[in-house]
Amino acid sequence: MKVRLRNPDREMDVPGPRRVRELLAHLSIDPDTVLVIRDRTLLTREEPLDDGDRVEIRPVISGGAGRGRVTKCARCRGPAVIELRRHNAAFCRSCFLHHFTEQVKRAVKDHDMLEPGQRVMVAVSGGKDSLGLWDVLLELGYWATGMYLNLGIGDYSDRSGAAAAAFAGERGAELIHVDLRESYGYDIPTAGRKGSRSTCSVCGLSKRYVFNRVALDHGFDVVATGHNLDDEAATLLGNTLRWQTEYIARQFPVLAAREGMVKKVKPLHRLSERETAAFAVLKGIDYVVEECPLVAGNTQLRYKDALNLLERTSPGTKSAFYLGYLDRAAPLFAGEDRAALTACERCGQPTTGRFCAFCRAGAQIRGERLAGPGDRQVASEISTEALPEEIYATHTAGP
Amino acid sequence: MKVRLRNPDREMDVPGPRRVRELLAHLSIDPDTVLVIRDRTLLTREEPLDDGDRVEIRPVISGGAGRGRVTKCARCRGPAVIELRRHNAAFCRSCFLHHFTEQVKRAVKDHDMLEPGQRVMVAVSGGKDSLGLWDVLLELGYWATGMYLNLGIGDYSDRSGAAAAAFAGERGAELIHVDLRESYGYDIPTAGRKGSRSTCSVCGLSKRYVFNRVALDHGFDVVATGHNLDDEAATLLGNTLRWQTEYIARQFPVLAAREGMVKKVKPLHRLSERETAAFAVLKGIDYVVEECPLVAGNTQLRYKDALNLLERTSPGTKSAFYLGYLDRAAPLFAGEDRAALTACERCGQPTTGRFCAFCRAGAQIRGERLAGPGDRQVASEISTEALPEEIYATHTAGP
Repeated sequence: MKVRLRNPDREMDVPGPRRVRELLAHLSIDPDTVLVIRDRTLLTREEPLDDGDRVEIRPVISGGAGRGRVTKCARCRGPAVIELRRHNAAFCRSCFLHHFTEQVKRAVKDHDMLEPGQRVMVAVSGGKDSLGLWDVLLELGYWATGMYLNLGIGDYSDRSGAAAAAFAGERGAELIHVDLRESYGYDIPTAGRKGSRSTCSVCGLSKRYVFNRVALDHGFDVVATGHNLDDEAATLLGNTLRWQTEYIARQFPVLAAREGMVKKVKPLHRLSERETAAFAVLKGIDYVVEECPLVAGNTQLRYKDALNLLERTSPGTKSAFYLGYLDRAAPLFAGEDRAALTACERCGQPTTGRFCAFCRAGAQIRGERLAGPGDRQVASEISTEALPEEIYATHTAGP
Repeated sequence: MKVRLRNPDREMDVPGPRRVRELLAHLSIDPDTVLVIRDRTLLTREEPLDDGDRVEIRPVISGGAGRGRVTKCARCRGPAVIELRRHNAAFCRSCFLHHFTEQVKRAVKDHDMLEPGQRVMVAVSGGKDSLGLWDVLLELGYWATGMYLNLGIGDYSDRSGAAAAAFAGERGAELIHVDLRESYGYDIPTAGRKGSRSTCSVCGLSKRYVFNRVALDHGFDVVATGHNLDDEAATLLGNTLRWQTEYIARQFPVLAAREGMVKKVKPLHRLSERETAAFAVLKGIDYVVEECPLVAGNTQLRYKDALNLLERTSPGTKSAFYLGYLDRAAPLFAGEDRAALTACERCGQPTTGRFCAFCRAGAQIRGERLAGPGDRQVASEISTEALPEEIYATHTAGP
């Protein structure tokens, strides 16, 4: 049997396993960290395999280990294509797509995310989460425009942009393309080398800033991002381990519009990373499977590892943590969000200091002087100050 | 070279490594999860080894992986015996003992744990934490009496009791011995099989109840337990992942005396598990190294694993989490401790229901009827109710 493994992309021959779980055991792969794909559909652990099969084992950067044998769809009793241990259920293709869409509808309704007729800008990276989000919003009839920000991360960015463009082309959807270097004079690899922030930090800051800016300029009502349950739980864990109560207080799937800031929503926050990957595969979305080449050592991934370790023995840990926070703990932190905003003296965007974090970081990277009228302070001096996060930041490195 | 490994106890010959770190690398052991002992002292990673050496590699169930080369004592510049990555420092024997004692003194002072002349009962399990705590309290001049509760866990309990008795004998300290079966009619293995609680849950409940009861009966002012930083951080993580806000609100190193409840203190809460193990070794305390044989699958250990994973790449994660909670987040949860207490109708101890959790669990295990005057409800029916934790419980399975 031909088996295609990703990251790095390679193909190997595996003789004779009769079922998916035997193949994964043979390759020492944790079943809940991957999707097993044959002919554009998903295979459960109990699916029989044939010597002539070609299967792809696609990582989803998630956690969990197999336990039972659940192969019937919990909803229609037909053959299942995916097990969801957290729900102690399996679904066939059509019932899984129904489940996925219902979770998005529930998120939108519970948090008043979108209203019919509003213009939504979907921040699209070319990965499973953002393309899946765009897809489901279009299917639900929302007026959803994609916005792709080219971060200048070599081939990776080129492939990501191509995936976003191909998706838009197939669906006749509108896609806005912004190039970070053209618009702001730097790319992320340069920013990681030159600035005082880590690569992931300056990347997250740049994305949040540009998404908001572009949405304001184009008159969108809402910005939607593809943050999933794993992203939100990992971010909450990082903020909680340091008891960064201001960040914790702002970690909601909806951030209301304020002066200079468009409303932001995260309609996938009830769905795990593995579910968003499965949705993309089952909908035939050609997303970029490889991870960002600059992500090594990202702290967000370490929080995901820790949560995956716990999820493996206690399925539901992540959702109990994040959704439980929203339900029960968030009111305790409500008074901690004390940021008082003024306009950045350079760009006019809201900030807690004189200059917003984006302008300070950009000036430092470009080696520019950053000063208001009659001010002699230079960027290199400013950059040694503590840089408070932009008000939108929830200390997240997401899609 | 002869190398003794524990858990299970075995000895092996290892040819030729020249330094401790090479020996550990050869055996694929994470340096910060063990103590390396030769002639009753500790060896740093850079310590040279000799072919004729006999060394013991003793697990401490903690985390962290080696990074730098720190072999001089941070305080006196003499040769170090232990590295503490969290403090980015190494200490010689004498400066480490000083550091350890200072941390205990600071805990006692910051939280008004003990006053001179008060009678302290130390809950002693025979392990590194509780014997180390007893030792340091005696050295600091407190009137500290040990209390050993025989849980009836076969050889393990016998060895633990013997370690406690030997310690008391060597120091001429007073030791109270209580046998769970003699006093309450069950042992822990039976309780784990017969009751509806997990073994670790009924064990923790029994220990908290009996410690308090014995301290009341003997007129002690304070009960001290050996919970260390790893224990407290793991408990806090478990409670936080489920946002059990009432438990979170009570997770303090001091619980004040209330009607029917003796004051409880945790003087080791600023010290990691690895530090308490090092203290015991350096003080020549013969503690029981093996873990409780019933602990497999304990959720507390899984939380420790997750924190150790994070501590490995970010030393200081555990202390930032627990000590940061005490400093900054605890006030947010203060209003969540809403337990209203009444006297248990059977034993008179404080409880949130009619019967305390200990009486309910005990009656269930013994197959007894548990009823108040004129009441026909039987234990087996009561046991199907949710069993709220004793008010002292902070959802901990500790020493």
